[in-house]
Amino acid sequence: MSFSVTILGSSSARPTPSRHPSAQLVNVHEQHYLVDAGEGVQQQMVRAGINPLKLKAIFISHLHGDHVFGLFPLLSTLGLYGRRTPLPIYAPAPLGEILECHRRYFDTDLPYETEWHEVRTTEHALLWENRTLEVWSIPLRHRVPTSGFLFREKRPPRNVDKFKIAKYNLTIAQIAEAKRGEAVELDTGEVLNNEELTYEPYKPRSYAYLSDTAWSPKAAELCRGVDLMYHEATYATAERKNARLRGHSTTEEAARAALRASAGRLVIGHYSSRYKDENVLVEEARTLFPNTCAATEGKTFTIEKQR
Amino acid sequence: MSFSVTILGSSSARPTPSRHPSAQLVNVHEQHYLVDAGEGVQQQMVRAGINPLKLKAIFISHLHGDHVFGLFPLLSTLGLYGRRTPLPIYAPAPLGEILECHRRYFDTDLPYETEWHEVRTTEHALLWENRTLEVWSIPLRHRVPTSGFLFREKRPPRNVDKFKIAKYNLTIAQIAEAKRGEAVELDTGEVLNNEELTYEPYKPRSYAYLSDTAWSPKAAELCRGVDLMYHEATYATAERKNARLRGHSTTEEAARAALRASAGRLVIGHYSSRYKDENVLVEEARTLFPNTCAATEGKTFTIEKQR
Repeated sequence: MSFSVTILGSSSARPTPSRHPSAQLVNVHEQHYLVDAGEGVQQQMVRAGINPLKLKAIFISHLHGDHVFGLFPLLSTLGLYGRRTPLPIYAPAPLGEILECHRRYFDTDLPYETEWHEVRTTEHALLWENRTLEVWSIPLRHRVPTSGFLFREKRPPRNVDKFKIAKYNLTIAQIAEAKRGEAVELDTGEVLNNEELTYEPYKPRSYAYLSDTAWSPKAAELCRGVDLMYHEATYATAERKNARLRGHSTTEEAARAALRASAGRLVIGHYSSRYKDENVLVEEARTLFPNTCAATEGKTFTIEKQR
Repeated sequence: MSFSVTILGSSSARPTPSRHPSAQLVNVHEQHYLVDAGEGVQQQMVRAGINPLKLKAIFISHLHGDHVFGLFPLLSTLGLYGRRTPLPIYAPAPLGEILECHRRYFDTDLPYETEWHEVRTTEHALLWENRTLEVWSIPLRHRVPTSGFLFREKRPPRNVDKFKIAKYNLTIAQIAEAKRGEAVELDTGEVLNNEELTYEPYKPRSYAYLSDTAWSPKAAELCRGVDLMYHEATYATAERKNARLRGHSTTEEAARAALRASAGRLVIGHYSSRYKDENVLVEEARTLFPNTCAATEGKTFTIEKQR
């Protein structure tokens, strides 16, 4: 029942010897989701010990090269690896057209389907859902249409007390009723209140990915109560003007977003190549939001269960 | 007057944690040429201390992703860096169409021109020429149209003896005549034979890039006398069948090509990801061609001047 985020790339557009462009792997209950796909993402996955074949879906925030150029080689390699399962890709338009171009020139015989789903970057909408997870779009403010992503674990079923299962000799059907929060009627006709059999499950966990964006109080509001927030901090506070000009955020703005959302923890990244040491940026953000960490390649942030 | 080759990527298509897909930087008299552009090539250039803005031209052997996916991010980044000089790119068709797609979606305001020149992969033709260098295509045998590249330094001008310049008080025009191999008439009317003033320059140097290809005696013949030959050796000799099936070469075939061309030195690369240690492959090739080296990321092979 894991919930974690592994940083595959922490840099902005200009390459540096050690940082890679934006990409992250979100692991929810051992289901793998890729968020952005900067150049080199497939090698970064291999380095982090992540099997690219296990990808459930890909979410692309916007169509700037440093967030998407690693997608095309990854798609080709998944073909080499023999993927057969269709691969959903959530991204703004016109990714569908671009994928078609790529396929025409490089992957005419790809053994699986790529399913592009358009992300409307002005809407806060449910994009993806399965038994345990929802992924929502978060409109962002950048130079091109851009969407963040909010990963929300669904409320887990109630926990059924093992001792009560033994005591009342519950059947699988009765356990399922209890998990759903229902009362259970025993074979004897006796009816047990749900509270008698179950206890509160852990709190659903959540992760927000907000990149690239200028300061956006609305985006922060949509992430209210999030356990872990990634917010880009391309620039130090002194570069406020530059940030505004380029549709990016400063460390201070990232920290303010985390404060506004009452986030549990903040991770910053998408560092401009001018900052050789990202700790300068982290220290700045910490003056406003102490629980701030640096995105660095290969680092995994785990959200532990809490009751 | 350097002549060297720096390996930026040594792997075949499947990514490994440490090897990068095919790319090399050929430096001839401090003019930089990129040969193939696998994913991550721009970061590999930065790591090797090579300024991407200094690129004179790019040569792409064929349009398989592991030789070209790094081109598009590189072109975008050169725009970010503010390149203004047109960039010639030599590659088989339909690279022109693909560049157009890329430009339409990612680089509508690129501040320089990309000039695609079609490489006809069945012809041994002169592709590029300047004062000191010629680059020739070498038809190869692969699953798609593929061309190798032969970098041939032009014959350097004759060396004019410094003592003779002083002795006869030669003018710049007279020195130029001597360099061209001509006789020189002094102001006194005396005519000096060229041999009196000059001595043999160093031998023109050459480098052949042969990847990807199945065994091709014709390609080897076209590289006769080459100082340094890079030949792909995707597989060990035992995998001969697999190599043939995939249009690749074994270590033995790479060594035979070097023997056939009477190459000075052989570098092998494009290793299948199954070989964790490339020395196994190098040892095999050395049994036939002792002067064989392994392509490894960041390694530079220099061709020294010889008289």
